[in-house]
Amino acid sequence: MANEDSKAHEPARIEIEDDLYGLDPDFVRAVEDALEQGDAATAAALTAPLHYSDAADLLDRLSPEDRVRLVEVLRADFEPEILTELDEGVRDQVIEALGFADLATAISELDSDDAVWLVSQLDEDERTRVLDALSSEDRAIVAQGLSYPEYSAGRMMQRELVAVPAYWTVGETIDYLRASTTIPEAFYDLYVVDPRHRPIGKIGLAKLVRSKRPQRLREIMDDESITVPVAADREEVAFLFRQHDLVSAPVADGAGRLVGVITIDDVVDVIDEEAADDMLRLAGVPDTDLYRAVKDTVRARIPWLLVNMLTAILASSVIGLFEATLEKIVALAVLMPIVAGLGGNAGTQTLAVAVRGLATKELDSDNALRIIGKEVLVGFINGTVLGCIIGPIAWAWFDMPMVGAVIGAAVVFNLLVAGLMGSLIPLTLEKFDVDPAVASSIFLTMCTDSLGFFAFLGLATLLLL
Amino acid sequence: MANEDSKAHEPARIEIEDDLYGLDPDFVRAVEDALEQGDAATAAALTAPLHYSDAADLLDRLSPEDRVRLVEVLRADFEPEILTELDEGVRDQVIEALGFADLATAISELDSDDAVWLVSQLDEDERTRVLDALSSEDRAIVAQGLSYPEYSAGRMMQRELVAVPAYWTVGETIDYLRASTTIPEAFYDLYVVDPRHRPIGKIGLAKLVRSKRPQRLREIMDDESITVPVAADREEVAFLFRQHDLVSAPVADGAGRLVGVITIDDVVDVIDEEAADDMLRLAGVPDTDLYRAVKDTVRARIPWLLVNMLTAILASSVIGLFEATLEKIVALAVLMPIVAGLGGNAGTQTLAVAVRGLATKELDSDNALRIIGKEVLVGFINGTVLGCIIGPIAWAWFDMPMVGAVIGAAVVFNLLVAGLMGSLIPLTLEKFDVDPAVASSIFLTMCTDSLGFFAFLGLATLLLL
Repeated sequence: MANEDSKAHEPARIEIEDDLYGLDPDFVRAVEDALEQGDAATAAALTAPLHYSDAADLLDRLSPEDRVRLVEVLRADFEPEILTELDEGVRDQVIEALGFADLATAISELDSDDAVWLVSQLDEDERTRVLDALSSEDRAIVAQGLSYPEYSAGRMMQRELVAVPAYWTVGETIDYLRASTTIPEAFYDLYVVDPRHRPIGKIGLAKLVRSKRPQRLREIMDDESITVPVAADREEVAFLFRQHDLVSAPVADGAGRLVGVITIDDVVDVIDEEAADDMLRLAGVPDTDLYRAVKDTVRARIPWLLVNMLTAILASSVIGLFEATLEKIVALAVLMPIVAGLGGNAGTQTLAVAVRGLATKELDSDNALRIIGKEVLVGFINGTVLGCIIGPIAWAWFDMPMVGAVIGAAVVFNLLVAGLMGSLIPLTLEKFDVDPAVASSIFLTMCTDSLGFFAFLGLATLLLL
Repeated sequence: MANEDSKAHEPARIEIEDDLYGLDPDFVRAVEDALEQGDAATAAALTAPLHYSDAADLLDRLSPEDRVRLVEVLRADFEPEILTELDEGVRDQVIEALGFADLATAISELDSDDAVWLVSQLDEDERTRVLDALSSEDRAIVAQGLSYPEYSAGRMMQRELVAVPAYWTVGETIDYLRASTTIPEAFYDLYVVDPRHRPIGKIGLAKLVRSKRPQRLREIMDDESITVPVAADREEVAFLFRQHDLVSAPVADGAGRLVGVITIDDVVDVIDEEAADDMLRLAGVPDTDLYRAVKDTVRARIPWLLVNMLTAILASSVIGLFEATLEKIVALAVLMPIVAGLGGNAGTQTLAVAVRGLATKELDSDNALRIIGKEVLVGFINGTVLGCIIGPIAWAWFDMPMVGAVIGAAVVFNLLVAGLMGSLIPLTLEKFDVDPAVASSIFLTMCTDSLGFFAFLGLATLLLL
């Protein structure tokens, strides 16, 4: 822990500061007012200092009419990165307002990874028109990027990079960096390549700067750095960066040649999206749709609800088997949602832990049995605790001791089912290459509802009639 | 899109590659075998090439006995970063096996941010003993780090950084970097400070290297870079990095002096944790507990289940109000879980989108009303679609047209409630500084269950009896 500047201790209590960044509502309102009064000069003055991400957030928030007006204001000096930060529905509208000529200009100014991504988001027809509007060189780069599968390293990488031969000295390299006009503006690592352009080592800029000018790159390069295959899944790339605390990684094609570089800022977006997507999918939403039109939101969410309706009807038909029992003891109808609900809640706990474990590779086929066993045991213990509480409550409520015994036993059984299914279902789906976050909770609710009702009403029929 | 190396197109179809990284089960088994046979030499040879994150994953996976054995194998050459990557329960065990002397050595070798974090994870008693074992200089650094609030920028930052005065030339700076022994091994940006050590600008290493030696730093520095206050919440820091695609940011104390730097690798962990924590908390799990002991897992999960039991009892007592109705028409008991379940599912969709929106600052008090309005409308439309399907099904099932009408109307009402509550509850909790991910789904289920049962059974009582 070498320390640059060891100052006196801070005062004992420091209040943590929230809400430091992000758009200020007053600012948004000022821009809206300017746009609505047709005051382009004020709108331009207000928005000029914005970072492109903030400009994108602002566009997201405006009404569709104001959005079109703001695009006009920004057009002369449009930062192309804005397009990469917009929400999906908003982006379509902004692209339409911008027109194909300005869109093609924007795309040609972007880093290749962003350009490829943006073109990939266009529909077939728009894509053809935009590609036609690009220079032939840019078109070739974008077309090649698009040839890689979605969610692959090839799509994430940028082609702008610094590749140098191993026999160069530090001095030669620094002189090259000073003189070259084709290398990217910001970069963190240099890649050392062999004569066939295959990566053989990596040198951090800090290391290069701190080495003596006559030293050969061969002597200072890190030759244990990992090369990512162009077809690697983006989740694998994110895992690698997180696991090894990387800032950049070289990407090689099938022949082992260096074709691009993935930098941490691209990976940050993937990490954030993947983790958030798991949450949204577990909850039955395909994507975040905060700013999407009502019609598209309805269309995106209703399939999940329809599938859930089918499982709910299935659970109801289980109840239907016991109509005769329910007619005799209506207390059972009052209590039965408790059994199903507790099972669903406990199962969701297990499910979330399992989905997260699969995403971080902490859970896999190797330790699956151990984790399932643990979850079943946890379910049994939690079920016993809850059963011992709800049993006496039910007894006292309806003054029927056997109803208390039946609900207690059913809760133990259903939490055991929840622990088993909550871990088994995502593991099984993963095995069959189905995203466990998407489908797990449907199967889980089906089990905990149907089996919960069956255990409770079945036991009651056996013991109470 | 400057392009270094525009090769021929790739073959048309590339298969995406999964499962590239992470520990190989066969490798884990080989290590286990060596440890269990007391073959320390083989175990050492196997584990020596591991990256510290992989070594930590390996320790996570081993049985408690093998873990202690592996610590002995690694002890002579223990990489301190392993301790920062272990799961909580495992870390406690490894620290115990390591002993205080070796723990103190490890801590003194870590970057200051990791050292502070690790010490913060120890309990009171261990913390005192470890601090005593540190050199007085390291102790002062750790103690100061601990004086910042948990989850603040002060806890995330490392004190190792490169600070240079604005009047230096590029040449002087590079000479200083070559000669200095106190600057960190890897860094991406230099900070330009005024005589009172306040940050006034930032220079990326690439820019420094590419500038001419006689240039003054003042001329090439970026003076619009953002300084993070030491008390900033770590979520704010993560937002800033993601929003502005930063790789590092300077941290200043209350007097504006540069006290540390936050680098992207620390932020990556925060981004990943925050997004995953939202998922886990929505599902009622305080933390990922895959490798935790059964007893601790039970203790962590049962409070949530107990609260849910209370809300389930509340919902049941709503059903209890209509016992007389249920006695007469048992079909209602069969159908009522459908109404509650659909409401819960639709509400969870809205909830997940709202929680994510709050985390990304896309949802705030400024556009809250608009979003709530949209969600209510989406709920109404989805409810109408589902009601029009379930109504006829119920009619046909029980041959009672009015039962169909009642369940249809109840579903519309309950999905409207779900849209309203799914957006209103997290916004309200956020306003009162309660983590919306933790408590939202409890309140939501309470509303959709109780109001769903009430609407369905109440309407049935009015219309069918």
